[in-house]
Amino acid sequence: MYQATTDKQLIKNIPDGGILTPKGFQCGGVHAGLRYTKLDLGMIVSEELASCAAVYTTSHFQAAPLVVTQESIAKEQLLQAIVVNSACANACTGEQGYQDALKMRSLAAEKIGVPEHHVAVASTGVIGEFMQMEKIQNGIGKLSVGKAIEDAKDFQTAILTTDTVMKSCCYSAEIDGVTVSMGGAAKGSGMIHPNMATMLGFLTTDAKVSSEHLTAALKEVTNTTFNQITVDGDTSTNDMVLVMANGTAGNQPLDPTHPDWTVFMELLKESCASLAKQIAKDGEGATKLIEISVAGAMSDEEARMIGKQIAGSNLVKTAVYGADANWGRIIGAIGQSPSSINPKTVDIYLGEMAMLKGSTPVDFDEDEAREYLLNDKVEIFVDLHLGDGKGMAWGCDLSYDYVKINASYRT
Amino acid sequence: MYQATTDKQLIKNIPDGGILTPKGFQCGGVHAGLRYTKLDLGMIVSEELASCAAVYTTSHFQAAPLVVTQESIAKEQLLQAIVVNSACANACTGEQGYQDALKMRSLAAEKIGVPEHHVAVASTGVIGEFMQMEKIQNGIGKLSVGKAIEDAKDFQTAILTTDTVMKSCCYSAEIDGVTVSMGGAAKGSGMIHPNMATMLGFLTTDAKVSSEHLTAALKEVTNTTFNQITVDGDTSTNDMVLVMANGTAGNQPLDPTHPDWTVFMELLKESCASLAKQIAKDGEGATKLIEISVAGAMSDEEARMIGKQIAGSNLVKTAVYGADANWGRIIGAIGQSPSSINPKTVDIYLGEMAMLKGSTPVDFDEDEAREYLLNDKVEIFVDLHLGDGKGMAWGCDLSYDYVKINASYRT
Repeated sequence: MYQATTDKQLIKNIPDGGILTPKGFQCGGVHAGLRYTKLDLGMIVSEELASCAAVYTTSHFQAAPLVVTQESIAKEQLLQAIVVNSACANACTGEQGYQDALKMRSLAAEKIGVPEHHVAVASTGVIGEFMQMEKIQNGIGKLSVGKAIEDAKDFQTAILTTDTVMKSCCYSAEIDGVTVSMGGAAKGSGMIHPNMATMLGFLTTDAKVSSEHLTAALKEVTNTTFNQITVDGDTSTNDMVLVMANGTAGNQPLDPTHPDWTVFMELLKESCASLAKQIAKDGEGATKLIEISVAGAMSDEEARMIGKQIAGSNLVKTAVYGADANWGRIIGAIGQSPSSINPKTVDIYLGEMAMLKGSTPVDFDEDEAREYLLNDKVEIFVDLHLGDGKGMAWGCDLSYDYVKINASYRT
Repeated sequence: MYQATTDKQLIKNIPDGGILTPKGFQCGGVHAGLRYTKLDLGMIVSEELASCAAVYTTSHFQAAPLVVTQESIAKEQLLQAIVVNSACANACTGEQGYQDALKMRSLAAEKIGVPEHHVAVASTGVIGEFMQMEKIQNGIGKLSVGKAIEDAKDFQTAILTTDTVMKSCCYSAEIDGVTVSMGGAAKGSGMIHPNMATMLGFLTTDAKVSSEHLTAALKEVTNTTFNQITVDGDTSTNDMVLVMANGTAGNQPLDPTHPDWTVFMELLKESCASLAKQIAKDGEGATKLIEISVAGAMSDEEARMIGKQIAGSNLVKTAVYGADANWGRIIGAIGQSPSSINPKTVDIYLGEMAMLKGSTPVDFDEDEAREYLLNDKVEIFVDLHLGDGKGMAWGCDLSYDYVKINASYRT
C-alpha cells in the first residue's frame, strides 16, 4: 500500500518540474495529423543510454506497440528513447499493425541515430484502426526535441486522448549527497481499471540504478498506485508505464542494499501515486476525485481489493456525483467483495463523518454530508475491524458527461 | 447455459398468465405507506402447504428478511406464503432489523392462520433504514389476497422500486398427461449483477416436486439465467428468488428419474430466463436489452464469464446507448477476462454483421450498424474458436438516466 513513511519526509515536490527536470533528457511533440488539430506524436530522448523498466496491460489483446517495446527491452534492457502517438491504438490490427509498430520504431531510431532496440513505442486511441504510416513518418520527420518547458508541454499534450488536462509530476531527493530527480507525464482517462488501463505513464530519472532493480521497484510500486485506480472498470489493450533512468545524477548505483534505497522507492512511489491520482481525477466526465482508504482487512491485498471495489461501483460513483450520502451503496460494494468481511463490525466514514459503526447506522447531518460531497476530493474511510491490512484506491464520480463522451467515442 | 433443446418445444408460453395461473395460489398488494403512493406491500399465498426452493444474494451483508426466510425454510422445507415490501431493504439494520423481519413474518402468518415458519419474508429498497413497523402492521391488516388479474397486478406492482414496468411470465407443459403451469413475478432494476442482484423473483407452480429436487433445479437454472444478467456490476444485500410448488396439478412426483424431468427443467428455465431478461431490459435508465452469446470458449462457465464481462462493460453499454458500433469496446471487455483467450482467433458479430474475424477488423457498413443499434434489442455474438464452451448473458445500455436516477436515489 502507498503509505507515508519517514522516508516520505525526505522527498521534495517540484511543482513546476516534469520529465525534463532530471538531467540529460529531452522531449517534444508535433501534430502529425492523426487528429484534427491537437498534437498527436511525441518523443522522449535520453542523452545517455538509460536503464529502464516497464509494466504492461494484462489484457489478452496486447497492442502491437507493446509487443515491439517488449522486444526492444528484451534485447539489452536499455533504452534511449520512447516514441508515442495518440488517436490510434494500433490494437487488433494483426500482422500489419505489428509491422507498423516496427516501422514507427525504426523511423524514431533513425531520427536520433540509435539502434532500433534502444527505442520503445507506445500508442493510444481507437482500437481496430490501422496506423496512418505516412502521417507517422512525416510527423517523426518534423518532430524536434529540446529542453524547454514548452517541449515538455508539447509531449504531455501529444499523448492525451479524451483527457481534459495534462498530467505531470516531479519529485527529488538527496541520495549519496547528490540531488536525484524523477519526473513523469501521463494520459488517462477512460477504460481505466485494474492492472494498467487506457493509460500511459512515462517517468524519467537521473538516478543510477540497474534495469533489474528498477523493474522490481516499478512492479512493486505499480501495485499500490496505478493498479489501484479505476474510472470505469474497463482495461485497455495499450497500457504501459515506462521508466528511463540515465544515471547522470552521480549517485552510487542503487540496489536494495544501498542505504538510500528506501528513499529511492519513495521517490518512485510519490511519482507514480501523483500520476495515478491525476488520472483518476480526470476520468472521463469526472467532476471529483474519490479516495478510498480501507483498514482492518485480513491483508493489505484484501484491503486494496475492497478499496477498488468501492471506487469502481457505479452506484457509489453516481451517488457521489449527486452529492447523495447514500452509504448503502458502499455497503453494496463491500458486500460483494470476495475478501473476508465480518458483516457485524464494519465502520464507514465520509470524510470525518461516521455513517456506520459496527455495521449499525449512525445519525448524521444530511446537509453537512451533502456539503462535504460537493468538494473536489471526497474521502471514504472503511474499517473492517478484522485484521491489520490497509490499502487505498482512487476513482472518480460517474456523470452525464461520461455517458456523453462514450456514447459517441469514435465520432 | 440457457439453450433451446427439443424439450423447449414442449413448453407453451401463456402471454396473459402469471403467478396466479398455476392452480391453488392467491396474491395481493396494498399501499402500506412506506412510499408516497405506490403499492408497497404484497403477499402470495398457496392454498396448500407447498414445497419450496430459494437462492439468495452472495453479499456478505445479507439483509434481515433473507436470514428470516432461511430460518423458515430450514425448519420443514415447506412454505405457504411469502410477504414482501418495497421502499425499505431492512439491510444493515442489526438486531432491530432482525426483530422487525421476524415481526413481519409473524404478522403475515397470523393473518392467514399458518405457523410462522411457513412464511417467507423479502424486502427491497434503501439500505440502512429501519422498517416502519406500524405501517407494515397496518398494511398487512388491510391486505387481501384473491385470484383476479388485478390481484396479480397489485402484487407485481407492490414489489417494484425504480422499475418502470411490471415483470411477469407464465409457461405450461404437459407432464404425466396433466397440464403443469409455472408463473413468475420479479423486480429489478439497479444494483443488478452476479449471483442475485437487487432483484426479487417469485415463482409459483402447481407441479408436484419435493423441496429437495426443486432446490437443486433452481440452483442449476439460476446459474444460466438470473446470474447472467448485469445492469451495473453491483450486487445487493436483498436478492432472492423463491419458488413455491403446491402439487395441485396432479402429476406424479417429479425427480431426475421421472421421464418428464427435463420438461419440468425447461419450464423452470423458460420462466427464469424470461424474468431475467425482463429485468435486464428494464435496468435503470436502460433504453435497450443487450444479449451476448459466446461460443468457442474452453468451457460453458468461461463462456458465461466472458459474456457477463461484455454485458457489464460501461464502455460497451455507453457505445450501444449511442448506437456507436465501437467493437473495440467489446475487445477491451473480452481482453480483461481471466478466461482463456487466443488473441488471434476472435470473431465478433453485431447482429448478423461481422466486425472482427480471426481478430482482424472486417469492413462493415457504418450506417447499417448504426441502424441495427437503434433496435430495442441488440445481439452481440462472440466466437473464440478455442473449445466447445457456450454461454449467454444479458445487460442493458448505460444512459444519462442511469446517472440521473442514481445521483439522487434516496431523495
